[in-house]
Amino acid sequence: MVSQEKGGRFSYLDHLDCGRCAKTYDADVPQGLCGCGAPLLARYDLDGVAAACSPQRIGSRSPDLWRYHELLPVSCPEAVVTLGEGMTPLVPLVRLGVELDLPQLFMKDEGLLPTGTFKARGATVGISRARELGVKRIAMPTNGNAGAAWASYGARAGLESLIVMPVDAPNIPRAECAIAGSRLYLVDGLIGDAGAVAAGAVANQGYTDVSTLKEPYRLEGKKTMGLELFEQLGWRVPDVILYPTGGGVGLIGIYKALQECMQLGWIGPKLPRLVAVQASGCAPIVKAWEERAEVSLAWANASTIAFGITVPKALGDFLILRALYATEGCAIAVDDSDILAAQARLAALEGAFVCPEGAACFAAAQKLRASEWLRRSDEVVVFNTGTGILYPDTVRVEAPVLGKGEAAPLN
Amino acid sequence: MVSQEKGGRFSYLDHLDCGRCAKTYDADVPQGLCGCGAPLLARYDLDGVAAACSPQRIGSRSPDLWRYHELLPVSCPEAVVTLGEGMTPLVPLVRLGVELDLPQLFMKDEGLLPTGTFKARGATVGISRARELGVKRIAMPTNGNAGAAWASYGARAGLESLIVMPVDAPNIPRAECAIAGSRLYLVDGLIGDAGAVAAGAVANQGYTDVSTLKEPYRLEGKKTMGLELFEQLGWRVPDVILYPTGGGVGLIGIYKALQECMQLGWIGPKLPRLVAVQASGCAPIVKAWEERAEVSLAWANASTIAFGITVPKALGDFLILRALYATEGCAIAVDDSDILAAQARLAALEGAFVCPEGAACFAAAQKLRASEWLRRSDEVVVFNTGTGILYPDTVRVEAPVLGKGEAAPLN
Repeated sequence: MVSQEKGGRFSYLDHLDCGRCAKTYDADVPQGLCGCGAPLLARYDLDGVAAACSPQRIGSRSPDLWRYHELLPVSCPEAVVTLGEGMTPLVPLVRLGVELDLPQLFMKDEGLLPTGTFKARGATVGISRARELGVKRIAMPTNGNAGAAWASYGARAGLESLIVMPVDAPNIPRAECAIAGSRLYLVDGLIGDAGAVAAGAVANQGYTDVSTLKEPYRLEGKKTMGLELFEQLGWRVPDVILYPTGGGVGLIGIYKALQECMQLGWIGPKLPRLVAVQASGCAPIVKAWEERAEVSLAWANASTIAFGITVPKALGDFLILRALYATEGCAIAVDDSDILAAQARLAALEGAFVCPEGAACFAAAQKLRASEWLRRSDEVVVFNTGTGILYPDTVRVEAPVLGKGEAAPLN
Repeated sequence: MVSQEKGGRFSYLDHLDCGRCAKTYDADVPQGLCGCGAPLLARYDLDGVAAACSPQRIGSRSPDLWRYHELLPVSCPEAVVTLGEGMTPLVPLVRLGVELDLPQLFMKDEGLLPTGTFKARGATVGISRARELGVKRIAMPTNGNAGAAWASYGARAGLESLIVMPVDAPNIPRAECAIAGSRLYLVDGLIGDAGAVAAGAVANQGYTDVSTLKEPYRLEGKKTMGLELFEQLGWRVPDVILYPTGGGVGLIGIYKALQECMQLGWIGPKLPRLVAVQASGCAPIVKAWEERAEVSLAWANASTIAFGITVPKALGDFLILRALYATEGCAIAVDDSDILAAQARLAALEGAFVCPEGAACFAAAQKLRASEWLRRSDEVVVFNTGTGILYPDTVRVEAPVLGKGEAAPLN
């Protein structure tokens, strides 16, 4: 259903360059990391974009993330592998806002995407571009949800996939991978151990590595979270954005959207303060930010109920930290007990059942308000990165069973 | 985020009338069933709607179901209880279409809604209107998903809810109800037994009955599935619509949308053939349709993996059957094994993980094409009513566990 208006190109992708050493690369062939070991970033002909496209023109397009196709890396509509993803709602949280003393509190709800998480954004763009460049087989490690998304979009594209996840990852994404027909392996370890298995399949079995930031296009899909948010606010930015941070692609993507929209003149010069939220049991970015370091150190014995952000050492850590410093944001860790409490409170007050990673951001908002880092006047946007449906075990259910003919007890 | 343009009313709700005996009722106070025992239907001042609103005007509004507010029963934007639901994607299924010899096959994916199913549509409208009319406590029986939706939207609205579901209903909706803070009971029996418990709470504990079709506004939310589909097709209808049918509100709602849009002149006179899909283990509507009956008989020993459509006797059966006859549609039953096969095939070819109820419609499409009831030239729209994520147990997962340092075996 993705189409192109007359005139202009579908994509203004121009080249890739290294996020660390700025060396440039050809975007017309599959590329992995830079020779220096850092991720490559997609760069666009922004003058071309500005001439071909405008916020007004985008506003007349279908409500999915491919409305931003000029700023995405796929060269023609026919190459797009889509399940209709994007334009997730920006939901006002009035009742929770009163409780947290944040009267302008909003949630961008990424649970309303195919496969149930924001990972669908990276998958639709990454898979589309991979297939367009001739890739046939993909391999990746995952904490669960990215695997579900890439397995699903891979199936739709007719690609083979090999997905490797920790044996302790949540169960439901296994079903998503399995029914999509991917080769699924569990490993006794964390995501780094899963990464070693995927790397082996890449080296020995002809798979293309689509691990976090090891190919340049997943990030472009994640970038659309920023584009949508700015558009939903009328092409402006909020005061603060809170994002749960594991590998960090979401936050890096939002920051990239910010830079591109500024260069295009689609938004003003104001920067939102970006907040990386981690769990106390795995907080390498928080530690690095507190020390004003440029990179993080691997976190030992990582463990949290917010499994999706259990990433002891992110390949893109320097990009995350750069975004935090540049926007005068911060990084903050929250305890698992506070995550579960925030998840329950949000559901009870606002009717939204969010994933633990999203709930972590609400717990963080409460801490940041208490410390006055968040002001009462701040317009605050929290990203919920996935639906709570994927995590039924985070809820304790008390439901009496009634026999036939038995009535509900008086309340 | 729901707003109103200048001029015109937000809703053109005029009155209610009985779906069977046509007796009229005041829409400004809470109403249940007609005195004759049949459901009440919301009626609008369609001349007023036509004067205030047009497809073009609707096209400029936010991509959620409240864009159709003139045709919904809530009188002002401030009364709307929304989580940003609606405008679910209409996804082309090219690869499955080739396999089924249905080159114009589409899926309207209702999995991308808050709480994971189409039930969110009924809940946002039903809860908004209930609160607007002064309701404080709601009670309902459910096969799971409606309960999850009404508990969630009820929490957002600050209403108390009492939800009753069969003990054999899927597990995840229990977590959704529990975290939203509703009173949840399980009953040893089917939805009729749950209905008896809810009715008791209504009679003795001051709850308002929001069971299927026992209040008139859930149906109005479901109607938006039709409105969205027609709009997404450029304000026209497809040749055939397949819908999984338990209580039947979805199908009745789509038919109501069809009638209203025709009267408004927003679509032409062409009718889509409506197909009610049931499971072989609970197919009262199919039996009635085969006998050209006006009502169904209660199905004995109902049982199917598609638990959401395990409804032995629907209150609105005569409305469902009327819609099938009027559109020259049909009713068809499919076996559980075919449901699971269709679910797996759709995931493998199209990357979409659907609920068993949605999968039933794909199994039905295959049967109807084989019998030539569906023609190759038909434009066919299948409604997937919920995400497969809610049903992980329908998938058999084979995932070897690798030890530390172990590689994935060669493929």
